[in-house]
Amino acid sequence: MSDIWKGYRPPWYEEAPAEKSYRSIFKWGDPLGFKHPNEKLYREIKDVFALSDDDFRTRKNEGNAPVRFNKPVGLKQTQVAKIAKIVGSENISSDQYDRLKYSTGKTIEEAMKLRKGIVDKVTDLVVHPRNREDVKELVKLCNRERIPIYVFGGGSSVNFGLRPAKGGITLVLSTHMNRVVRLSELNQTVTVEAGIMGPALEEALNHAPQKFGTRHRYTCGHFPQSFEYSSAGGWVVTLGSGQASSYYGDAYNLVISQEYVTPAGNFITKEYPATATGPKVNDIMKGSEGTFGVLVALTLKVYRYMPENRRYFGFIFPSWEAAVNASREVTQGEFGMPAVFRISDEEETHFGLKLYGIDGTIFDKAMQIRGFKPMNRCLMIGTSEGHASFTANVKKNITHICRQFGAMYLTGFAAKQWEPGRFRDPYLREDLQDFGIITDTLETGVTWENIHRVHQEVRKVVKARPRTLCLTHASHFYPQGTNLYFIFFAKMDEIKEYVKFQDGILDAIAKSGGSLSHHHGVGRMISPWIEKHLGKEQMAVLRALKKHFDPNNIMNPGGQLGLDLKGRDWRKI
Amino acid sequence: MSDIWKGYRPPWYEEAPAEKSYRSIFKWGDPLGFKHPNEKLYREIKDVFALSDDDFRTRKNEGNAPVRFNKPVGLKQTQVAKIAKIVGSENISSDQYDRLKYSTGKTIEEAMKLRKGIVDKVTDLVVHPRNREDVKELVKLCNRERIPIYVFGGGSSVNFGLRPAKGGITLVLSTHMNRVVRLSELNQTVTVEAGIMGPALEEALNHAPQKFGTRHRYTCGHFPQSFEYSSAGGWVVTLGSGQASSYYGDAYNLVISQEYVTPAGNFITKEYPATATGPKVNDIMKGSEGTFGVLVALTLKVYRYMPENRRYFGFIFPSWEAAVNASREVTQGEFGMPAVFRISDEEETHFGLKLYGIDGTIFDKAMQIRGFKPMNRCLMIGTSEGHASFTANVKKNITHICRQFGAMYLTGFAAKQWEPGRFRDPYLREDLQDFGIITDTLETGVTWENIHRVHQEVRKVVKARPRTLCLTHASHFYPQGTNLYFIFFAKMDEIKEYVKFQDGILDAIAKSGGSLSHHHGVGRMISPWIEKHLGKEQMAVLRALKKHFDPNNIMNPGGQLGLDLKGRDWRKI
Repeated sequence: MSDIWKGYRPPWYEEAPAEKSYRSIFKWGDPLGFKHPNEKLYREIKDVFALSDDDFRTRKNEGNAPVRFNKPVGLKQTQVAKIAKIVGSENISSDQYDRLKYSTGKTIEEAMKLRKGIVDKVTDLVVHPRNREDVKELVKLCNRERIPIYVFGGGSSVNFGLRPAKGGITLVLSTHMNRVVRLSELNQTVTVEAGIMGPALEEALNHAPQKFGTRHRYTCGHFPQSFEYSSAGGWVVTLGSGQASSYYGDAYNLVISQEYVTPAGNFITKEYPATATGPKVNDIMKGSEGTFGVLVALTLKVYRYMPENRRYFGFIFPSWEAAVNASREVTQGEFGMPAVFRISDEEETHFGLKLYGIDGTIFDKAMQIRGFKPMNRCLMIGTSEGHASFTANVKKNITHICRQFGAMYLTGFAAKQWEPGRFRDPYLREDLQDFGIITDTLETGVTWENIHRVHQEVRKVVKARPRTLCLTHASHFYPQGTNLYFIFFAKMDEIKEYVKFQDGILDAIAKSGGSLSHHHGVGRMISPWIEKHLGKEQMAVLRALKKHFDPNNIMNPGGQLGLDLKGRDWRKI
Repeated sequence: MSDIWKGYRPPWYEEAPAEKSYRSIFKWGDPLGFKHPNEKLYREIKDVFALSDDDFRTRKNEGNAPVRFNKPVGLKQTQVAKIAKIVGSENISSDQYDRLKYSTGKTIEEAMKLRKGIVDKVTDLVVHPRNREDVKELVKLCNRERIPIYVFGGGSSVNFGLRPAKGGITLVLSTHMNRVVRLSELNQTVTVEAGIMGPALEEALNHAPQKFGTRHRYTCGHFPQSFEYSSAGGWVVTLGSGQASSYYGDAYNLVISQEYVTPAGNFITKEYPATATGPKVNDIMKGSEGTFGVLVALTLKVYRYMPENRRYFGFIFPSWEAAVNASREVTQGEFGMPAVFRISDEEETHFGLKLYGIDGTIFDKAMQIRGFKPMNRCLMIGTSEGHASFTANVKKNITHICRQFGAMYLTGFAAKQWEPGRFRDPYLREDLQDFGIITDTLETGVTWENIHRVHQEVRKVVKARPRTLCLTHASHFYPQGTNLYFIFFAKMDEIKEYVKFQDGILDAIAKSGGSLSHHHGVGRMISPWIEKHLGKEQMAVLRALKKHFDPNNIMNPGGQLGLDLKGRDWRKI
């Protein structure tokens, strides 16, 4: 996409954030990574929010001030010394900047605060364990001395999952505990330390013949939008899902075995493809979000990496209903699942065609001629992966189904336009927020029976607010249903207003019967809804497990998963 | 297969067992169902065990005496009255025959005892609850009065899973709680009461258009060998697996939601295709084998039923190693999985060719000519299911791979020979045992790295015993490994000898690193090995859950899952 503008181009922020500034903490990803709105998107935004170029002259609340706050370290000097003795003094830090950095996730609420220099909860001490033995010693010490432990993997939590509500220490697993331990070509598994980041893992697997002497290249098949800034351990303890999950499965399905360090002891689950030896502790630990113990290593399934066989496709449908029906037919057709698979509702399609550069092209003209009208038409994009004969057959069947549902084939163009930027959309956030526009997301799992109800109820709430965009897509498919991923754009400055807005949407999801989260996890943000959602009997099961693993509540205490939440306001813990 | 014999034909038992006899309890399946050894198999057996026709003149220990034992009902009359008040007096029984029948599973050890009229543990009262409300009242009452509860689904346990070690009551779920509650075509799920038996469920799904007005026909995709005599609830609480699991998944993977009644309360897990709301209670309950509570209803995935697209295939390999390597390549090839998929080792192939009528046919001759020698050659059979384009592609790729590994194509003949009798092999057991030959099975889950070690270690133990057959196959496949299923034949009368033999095999599985069970579950039989296998930390997790759900240990107490096992001898509880 060219970025030569015909009209006024706002001064998008284009340097690295000031060193040790608030901005360097809340900014997504690479300090020099940017994805600016293109001119079409910019015009649309001006339109929607009734803004003029003048509103885009000066950036506000950039957050470039150096981090400074007055929160004394809550640990005793003797405790700090004991921790230093375990991991080495070079692996601890009580520097203010470090304390804030490793206490912060990627919610818009945190960004709003940091832009204003407001510092909420911070850890007392940042600790970089070198290996599992360090973690064992740390957990033992902290359990004995009742020091809270928080774990920072990639730091991409969007629900306050690593908020150090009770101070204590934050373990940063990605600093040292980031190795590939073993690749088994026979078993098609990889064993890694939990702090390994997505790209390092994928790089190693893609180059397995050179690095491990394997016959084939491999992929982990897990590509969340946060891929570049999330860790393998984080994927599993928060139940993440990748953009190609419809074929490869969610993080939950990728895990063969795990090694945990908990106050109640340490263990490695067995490495079997399947077993019938009672309830699976391996599965019980998934989604525990740091409340049971520290995940230090894990063995994941891998898949043969055959990008040469990837097929791309795109279709435009006359309506959302047609897109939903076609995608359901695809998931239930028993010919194999596509990898990336994504349908956008009317509003997201409208923006997506601009964002991915389709708007105004020959495809757009063909669509208009054939009667696929803006704000009715809905986009589907996807890929198929695997053996060449499989990917060809999947694409062929999908094409056949989409035509039955009145769709027009758009070639692989849209999917190919989408692909290179697929991890980069979060970069848009800073540009818009520099001019007072927030963009945020919430997501839910739905059955096919319930998809329209949840979609409509959420839109009702969002659209009740004037000049607020609600872009929705479904992007993780199963024969039994899918997810709904909502992206909001609003002109909003006040944190209170934002929180109220968000609460209203979560209420709508809960009331209309969606899951409280499909793949973002619970953290603290969702915790006020969780007990009602699961029911008190199921919450009691989780609390019984918590009590078993962590009787002194040192593992991620203060609202996480709603386990120790009294009342609804975790912000006050 | 014709059953006209050239030589002597033993007097295989061919009537229904005497009414209310021991035989009517231990006999597999339909009282008038039989699968006699054919002549080739009979000759082979005589050979192996050095027997003559004279050894097959008279059946021994047929167990046709009427059930009679002296074990007074351990409940108070007032307790019986309270139970009768809940379910109705027509739904309880303290009749001796009923008490023994619903206390007995299908282990060879139980059959050996019953043939000799030895009665071990029996329930005090058989109860047939009518619905979930009955179960709730019963669990409440029993929890208050500390009455043990055992659950009988289809009664096909092969590890003493329903042994009423502590007396109390046995709930028979299949009597009344056997309905299809709802079929959702949109969600592709079926909700059933837990006591529904395999054939009733499959029949309803196959005829869904007529019965539920759906557009498509459906299948549950779950066909354990015990299909005809096992319940949907039983599949899930014991972590069963079906013959087509390589495509459809294990029972574990089929479950969308479950409803449980436990001493700690009742709950239904949410019906989402995926969710990220903490550890999944839905999965925690799977495999709980009656120790946490009673599974009263469940929602399962279903699949489009398209038998017209099924493809059959069969191959003969020059060796077990080649068969293993080819099947691994199939599971890792990313072109889709076969449904039925099964490789037999040298010894099983030798017998299988006789049992399935291949021996002596044109295929046998072709194999011999092409150098596939008896006791070297190994058989693979299978099917592909799903969309026509998918099944054709799977078969094509499998054929290509098998040829690469030196196999000869046998057409679909062997798989088609196998199919009609696939639930009927257990019927062989009674015929052989009538003449003092026992046949039993054990099974394990293995990784690809470990398959040969486990196979060899088990064979070493079995073959150390003179004149003992060990037939092995793998029949549940994953990219990460498979299972090994061992079938033993031995001339053995003494229960003590049998137990010692079995213990030796379980030791071999444990020591060589196989899972203690791939799909038979733990029950009591495996329980002495479980703590060492899982490790004390993981056993502590299961015990914490047990304590939460069932603090008074009324749910399937007495050794189940090893939860309340002290020492190793569950037979003495």
